[in-house]
Amino acid sequence: MTKIAIRNGRIVTSSQLYSADLLIVDEKISVIGELPDVAVDRTIDAGGCFVMPGGVDPHTHMDTPTMGTVTSDDFETGTVAAAVGGTTTIIDFPIQGKGDDPRTSFETWQAKAEGKAAVDWAFHEIITEVTGDTLPALHELVKEGVTSFKLFTAYPGSWMLDDGAIFQVLRSSSENGSFVMLHCENGLAIDVLVKEALRRGEIAPIYHARTRPSTAEGEATGRMIALAEMAQVPIYIVHLSAAEALRQVEEARDRNVRVFAETCPHYLVLSEEKLAEPDFEGAKYVCSPPLRSTEHTAALWRGLANGSLQVVSTDHAAFCFKGQKEMGRNDFSKIPNGIPGVEWRIALLHHYGVGGGHITLNQFVDYVSTAPAKLFGLYPRKGEIAPGSDADIVVFDPHVEKTLSVKDQYTNSDYNPYEGKRIVGWPKTVLLRGEVIAENGRFVGRSGQGQFQRSSPSTALG
Amino acid sequence: MTKIAIRNGRIVTSSQLYSADLLIVDEKISVIGELPDVAVDRTIDAGGCFVMPGGVDPHTHMDTPTMGTVTSDDFETGTVAAAVGGTTTIIDFPIQGKGDDPRTSFETWQAKAEGKAAVDWAFHEIITEVTGDTLPALHELVKEGVTSFKLFTAYPGSWMLDDGAIFQVLRSSSENGSFVMLHCENGLAIDVLVKEALRRGEIAPIYHARTRPSTAEGEATGRMIALAEMAQVPIYIVHLSAAEALRQVEEARDRNVRVFAETCPHYLVLSEEKLAEPDFEGAKYVCSPPLRSTEHTAALWRGLANGSLQVVSTDHAAFCFKGQKEMGRNDFSKIPNGIPGVEWRIALLHHYGVGGGHITLNQFVDYVSTAPAKLFGLYPRKGEIAPGSDADIVVFDPHVEKTLSVKDQYTNSDYNPYEGKRIVGWPKTVLLRGEVIAENGRFVGRSGQGQFQRSSPSTALG
Amino acid sequence: MTKIAIRNGRIVTSSQLYSADLLIVDEKISVIGELPDVAVDRTIDAGGCFVMPGGVDPHTHMDTPTMGTVTSDDFETGTVAAAVGGTTTIIDFPIQGKGDDPRTSFETWQAKAEGKAAVDWAFHEIITEVTGDTLPALHELVKEGVTSFKLFTAYPGSWMLDDGAIFQVLRSSSENGSFVMLHCENGLAIDVLVKEALRRGEIAPIYHARTRPSTAEGEATGRMIALAEMAQVPIYIVHLSAAEALRQVEEARDRNVRVFAETCPHYLVLSEEKLAEPDFEGAKYVCSPPLRSTEHTAALWRGLANGSLQVVSTDHAAFCFKGQKEMGRNDFSKIPNGIPGVEWRIALLHHYGVGGGHITLNQFVDYVSTAPAKLFGLYPRKGEIAPGSDADIVVFDPHVEKTLSVKDQYTNSDYNPYEGKRIVGWPKTVLLRGEVIAENGRFVGRSGQGQFQRSSPSTALG
Amino acid sequence: MTKIAIRNGRIVTSSQLYSADLLIVDEKISVIGELPDVAVDRTIDAGGCFVMPGGVDPHTHMDTPTMGTVTSDDFETGTVAAAVGGTTTIIDFPIQGKGDDPRTSFETWQAKAEGKAAVDWAFHEIITEVTGDTLPALHELVKEGVTSFKLFTAYPGSWMLDDGAIFQVLRSSSENGSFVMLHCENGLAIDVLVKEALRRGEIAPIYHARTRPSTAEGEATGRMIALAEMAQVPIYIVHLSAAEALRQVEEARDRNVRVFAETCPHYLVLSEEKLAEPDFEGAKYVCSPPLRSTEHTAALWRGLANGSLQVVSTDHAAFCFKGQKEMGRNDFSKIPNGIPGVEWRIALLHHYGVGGGHITLNQFVDYVSTAPAKLFGLYPRKGEIAPGSDADIVVFDPHVEKTLSVKDQYTNSDYNPYEGKRIVGWPKTVLLRGEVIAENGRFVGRSGQGQFQRSSPSTALG
Repeated sequence: MTKIAIRNGRIVTSSQLYSADLLIVDEKISVIGELPDVAVDRTIDAGGCFVMPGGVDPHTHMDTPTMGTVTSDDFETGTVAAAVGGTTTIIDFPIQGKGDDPRTSFETWQAKAEGKAAVDWAFHEIITEVTGDTLPALHELVKEGVTSFKLFTAYPGSWMLDDGAIFQVLRSSSENGSFVMLHCENGLAIDVLVKEALRRGEIAPIYHARTRPSTAEGEATGRMIALAEMAQVPIYIVHLSAAEALRQVEEARDRNVRVFAETCPHYLVLSEEKLAEPDFEGAKYVCSPPLRSTEHTAALWRGLANGSLQVVSTDHAAFCFKGQKEMGRNDFSKIPNGIPGVEWRIALLHHYGVGGGHITLNQFVDYVSTAPAKLFGLYPRKGEIAPGSDADIVVFDPHVEKTLSVKDQYTNSDYNPYEGKRIVGWPKTVLLRGEVIAENGRFVGRSGQGQFQRSSPSTALG
Repeated sequence: MTKIAIRNGRIVTSSQLYSADLLIVDEKISVIGELPDVAVDRTIDAGGCFVMPGGVDPHTHMDTPTMGTVTSDDFETGTVAAAVGGTTTIIDFPIQGKGDDPRTSFETWQAKAEGKAAVDWAFHEIITEVTGDTLPALHELVKEGVTSFKLFTAYPGSWMLDDGAIFQVLRSSSENGSFVMLHCENGLAIDVLVKEALRRGEIAPIYHARTRPSTAEGEATGRMIALAEMAQVPIYIVHLSAAEALRQVEEARDRNVRVFAETCPHYLVLSEEKLAEPDFEGAKYVCSPPLRSTEHTAALWRGLANGSLQVVSTDHAAFCFKGQKEMGRNDFSKIPNGIPGVEWRIALLHHYGVGGGHITLNQFVDYVSTAPAKLFGLYPRKGEIAPGSDADIVVFDPHVEKTLSVKDQYTNSDYNPYEGKRIVGWPKTVLLRGEVIAENGRFVGRSGQGQFQRSSPSTALG
Repeated sequence: MTKIAIRNGRIVTSSQLYSADLLIVDEKISVIGELPDVAVDRTIDAGGCFVMPGGVDPHTHMDTPTMGTVTSDDFETGTVAAAVGGTTTIIDFPIQGKGDDPRTSFETWQAKAEGKAAVDWAFHEIITEVTGDTLPALHELVKEGVTSFKLFTAYPGSWMLDDGAIFQVLRSSSENGSFVMLHCENGLAIDVLVKEALRRGEIAPIYHARTRPSTAEGEATGRMIALAEMAQVPIYIVHLSAAEALRQVEEARDRNVRVFAETCPHYLVLSEEKLAEPDFEGAKYVCSPPLRSTEHTAALWRGLANGSLQVVSTDHAAFCFKGQKEMGRNDFSKIPNGIPGVEWRIALLHHYGVGGGHITLNQFVDYVSTAPAKLFGLYPRKGEIAPGSDADIVVFDPHVEKTLSVKDQYTNSDYNPYEGKRIVGWPKTVLLRGEVIAENGRFVGRSGQGQFQRSSPSTALG
Repeated sequence: MTKIAIRNGRIVTSSQLYSADLLIVDEKISVIGELPDVAVDRTIDAGGCFVMPGGVDPHTHMDTPTMGTVTSDDFETGTVAAAVGGTTTIIDFPIQGKGDDPRTSFETWQAKAEGKAAVDWAFHEIITEVTGDTLPALHELVKEGVTSFKLFTAYPGSWMLDDGAIFQVLRSSSENGSFVMLHCENGLAIDVLVKEALRRGEIAPIYHARTRPSTAEGEATGRMIALAEMAQVPIYIVHLSAAEALRQVEEARDRNVRVFAETCPHYLVLSEEKLAEPDFEGAKYVCSPPLRSTEHTAALWRGLANGSLQVVSTDHAAFCFKGQKEMGRNDFSKIPNGIPGVEWRIALLHHYGVGGGHITLNQFVDYVSTAPAKLFGLYPRKGEIAPGSDADIVVFDPHVEKTLSVKDQYTNSDYNPYEGKRIVGWPKTVLLRGEVIAENGRFVGRSGQGQFQRSSPSTALG
């Protein structure tokens, strides 16, 4: 039995804030409060720090083939970056191949992660085709611990499902206990705009944003909510970036439709003008939905403040500028879509969200850890500071200063989208199931140390 | 030169109400006010009556093949019914055949109408396919006087277009001066619900309504508004029946998106429980969107009262119960969709709308005549009482009582959906371009008397 | 019998646009269309011009004591200005004195107008006190032809009524056939802000705007709508200036509460920064509600475009800068509140509204003439081009250019708030009941020519 | 040192649900989790039960003079009832007398509570007058631990403040760290309706509801939100009962105005038809705002489900039917306003809310304990299960059945508004600062055991 004490910290959970000590025994939290007088293997002094549950990032794309290339972080580099930044569980996305049993890609992605991941992982699966066999196959996946599925209204010809296929998956989710996540943009309308733009010779990265208007996201969000309402199931909107989409979520909530939504740090901290940077530098910021104008940014902060948004994930999809982003030099529609974030998510939300006065400390912990753990069936094992929970713990120093830079990152990319930003607050010590895996921004754990986490049906859905 | 005087009436237009005499010379209105002292061929005494412009019904389906049968009114019977009810112009719908030039069906429908129609007619065309040739072909149709096109978000496999095709037609409408009408229901989701219902053995007419929920209409209406907003063009929502759809229209208007919408008498006067009538009688009321609950009915009256809805059309699609509606005895999805209305539209809106205190006399005239004439490029030739306008005139007696019945109708069907309803108010005299074509509910004109009306670009769109 | 023909013009009414000639016999319009072959006393060539009904300005304050001074236009100078600008009827406001029978001020104001007014006039009355005698006295005023009453939620200590008094007047309006107009700003909260500002030494005109926030107008508008809803009567919101207030009106309309609202040219054409002009020049633009930021201006144009606002009045309250506006040099709260407008209202709305693409020609005519005539019981005598209506006619030349300037105005003030603005379109010929009273910007009528118009109960309220 | 162990329970806090044991040392929670091997004075077996923080009821009126009588529960009987029902802290309301220093009534109410209260108490104070001395006096009260003030928009002539006075208190709250609570009904309009009703002879209890329409509550709620927005301070809406008021709260939240709101069990569980019970029995249910129709009830459950409402309090104001409610036999406006609830609040919300599927267990705990503790400056001493918090603990048995009845209540009244309702779930054991004060529905504590709790400024307000 290994025993670790964490002393002198302030415990912060999604609703609590109090001073207490913690005793960890092996992989679990054992005692909170007045600790028993026993010998411990290590004492961590959390004086001046917050003691919070390890981060859960429910939206990453490690080692993922897309647009003729593969994301530059694999499960090793990506999870090391996660660990350093305070995230102890990621939820990644196997992608069903056309014509394949959904289990095939689940197994493929397990193989990508096993023996490499430095933090724990779980899976949602992306469904790209609905045939007669699909719905029973999803039922089987739920039994394997994959209880959430992601569907797209964008990318016609590759990942997009039409409304009939989506509606069938939604209807089945009430039977098999799964939870459906949706990428909401009207891909068919966007494709017409993209073709019009290219025909006019508009090839630069900024046209990526101009051909994916916020109205196209608001529309698809409203449509998915309506389908969910007809199917009588809850849904989860991924990477919400537009004020119109937020409005749809708020109206749905007010008529008691259960819609959950996440946004990402880049939609909160960066904005559209980044795509206009010269020398094709704008390509570094190409992701979908695109970065928006600051009106939208402000709306998203409001949505986090008032609880209309429940999660901050990253949609971590790293690429190098050289050789990858450059594929779209002559055609913005060929730039690989994605931006990294798993390493900086928690610190960015702390600095800009809590430090900026937009959200409370409790909301901060909820959005980066507790809410995704609950929504995706990992709670109370993950996402909580309570006896019996996994000892995934971040001792967060809210005073340390750090300048974000490619020179100093674990993320496998040749650039940092937040280059030069000076932030306050960073994880001092990170524990994964009772083992210290990061200290003061350095990774001290082992690849392969992570374990697959079977998800139960969501406990957030009442 | 033929001269007709109409004396002693109250002129009612879409905004006016005043007492004055009219002089008609040949096909046109010549003088309003103190008439010159000239000999007239006929004097019509409009004492105690309203003198209003002839009705314009912008939504009829005469002689139209659908669901394995053909609507039971052709251009002769259907327009005689229109004439008697005070409608002097109908706008019908050629349907583009898959693989055909849109002009082909235009010519086919012209042949159906010519020599038969008893009132004037114009055309919108239904577009069922968008290929490389389609958009130029639409441009040609505009030059021929067909300036509006109707697209469907329902009926996958036959008339439905996907959002990409719809968006292309919307984009082109800003270039060719046309105006796009949309049938808004999410057909793909509805198809899933229909299959589920039939699988459960739910075959009766009421399941037609239950598998086409109002949410499916609200969703598609919101989606089409969003596409119009992105395309920066106005649109027209046909046969709006659901409170959710009305809400979408109202919100669009409040952010100054130009969305116009019509509803139909059956959505105002009948409701869902009609579909539950025993002995398969419910089939008489099967149309799409379906009749709704009375909450929706009340919302539609509010929409007419506050101007959120601008037109009352009929979507006139007559069938016989015997041999036609009966095709769906064992499967509600095989019941031909449609309900007649062209004969009673004006009287129903007068009785239930004006008489029921929902709308003013001016709104009544606007909704049945002036607004559709303006929206579809027929104004001020049609839809107005003014010197120079066609002398299409209804002398409407607001006091005469009439009981609606199949025994007493010109509509070619073996039933009347309003059977037994006692209403107050009916056209006493109806003139088409200066000729009396109906008197006291009797047709006194000639088939073939109607003329094709080339539509100009809409004048309602600023 | 005097006969005047107006030939070659385009008739524009609130819904019509067509070419026709007019014959006027004495005070009335006699014939529209093909004119009889009779001798006329005068023929006016309206070639290239619009022929529209004379303007009705339902909100002026001539010869009115306020804030220690008297508005600088009396019924003579003010109505001459109106005439030149195309307004042939004004509706002004007797103000009930505290402790007085409402009839007293009605008689006082009649005496101010009679023998002086150059155009026709009617009255609303401002009620400043509700005692046991007030409601019966209002009933008497209705019989005298004063059918609308204006109440204030602002100006505590002088004109403000509390919600109980307002609610009593609303309840009584359903019995006596009157219509209640409301000045909506939360005067009590504003007074606290004003005192706070003055205490901080904020004395300049700009603080007039800063202490009357748009939220205070939105709140009071929502409150008055709620009172009207509880009292089950329609209401009319005067000089709506704020986006929040417009939103309240739109939401009310969508739930079918009958709320009508006007805005004024200065809220559409000028904005808040005018109040910051140096050398106390900002005082020229002090009125209540205050000029707003351009976001509000844009919202108001949207409200006119979509029909949420139904009237453009002026709230004409002229003062001189010298000796009047200057009274507030050391305390913005002592600057007489008001801005002139009756002379330029029609031309401003034509130039910025129709010319600016915000509204149609029909809306333009409706907002400056037909709608106020209907709302305040003067229709169809006023506000219409139809046989039998008063021959109050404006032949409006939409092409003539004019620069607005104090050098060239009839309004009795030493400044012009629109100084230097170059506009296109001005009344070429203005007729009052068959007599030409203005030509090409020159007054050619007579003071004292106007007549009091008894108002009937509103015909706009169904 | 007294030590109590609570074993085998499920800990439920406002966001957590996990199995763990608790150790209490004297008045505080000392350890959660694997308990140290020490001797304890008592072990409570919480097997099959929830272990939750003691209830905080932030809205009671004990021993309070009103409408010519005094509420029938004093601080002894009322807090014994609270204790039995699982509420360990109440927040009551001293009422400022006209002309009095606010401190006077604070002292009066302290005297009413001291030596009598069986649970802890804190105070908000009702402010009925704002003179030059009032705002400084409030500042002093904050220093004494009274950090929230309640103002009324209803009851003109007694407790109502006008908007100017309210706005001054709001403005001052940003300076002195207090938090303003508002009773929102338009009292002036209601008074007119009440007088009208009595004049028509409508004297029965049901007219209490009919003369206090939901629109009057929605209006006042919107108005107070607008004042708060202008004053730039958060507010708290007490006893929200109407859908219109909820709508105002939701819209405010969506534009990021900080508005908090409570509702009460009687608005959730009872409805308007209760007031129509024969033999004057309806008087038992007279409270303000009145019970509403079931449409409103449904809206309130939605508001709790989606978090638009944050607290369930009781507005506990007990009266006897005999001698008290009977005072209004001939005039509903003389019936003392109030309904008891402190004894049943927690069980009712558990049974109807959690059992009815409206809210989660976490929301239940938040609404009855954690949220009010945070909002009113008592957190984390009260409202939390965490080391260091007061050992105010409810061991709640979710399976026990109980029928509510006057025969079996501690509340000092001769009736029970929930008479005969059979509910599932009741507090098995209740601890106040480490002492057991109730067991299985029996009070086992001592009057006078309660202590005054000084409130800090709210920690819920960021």
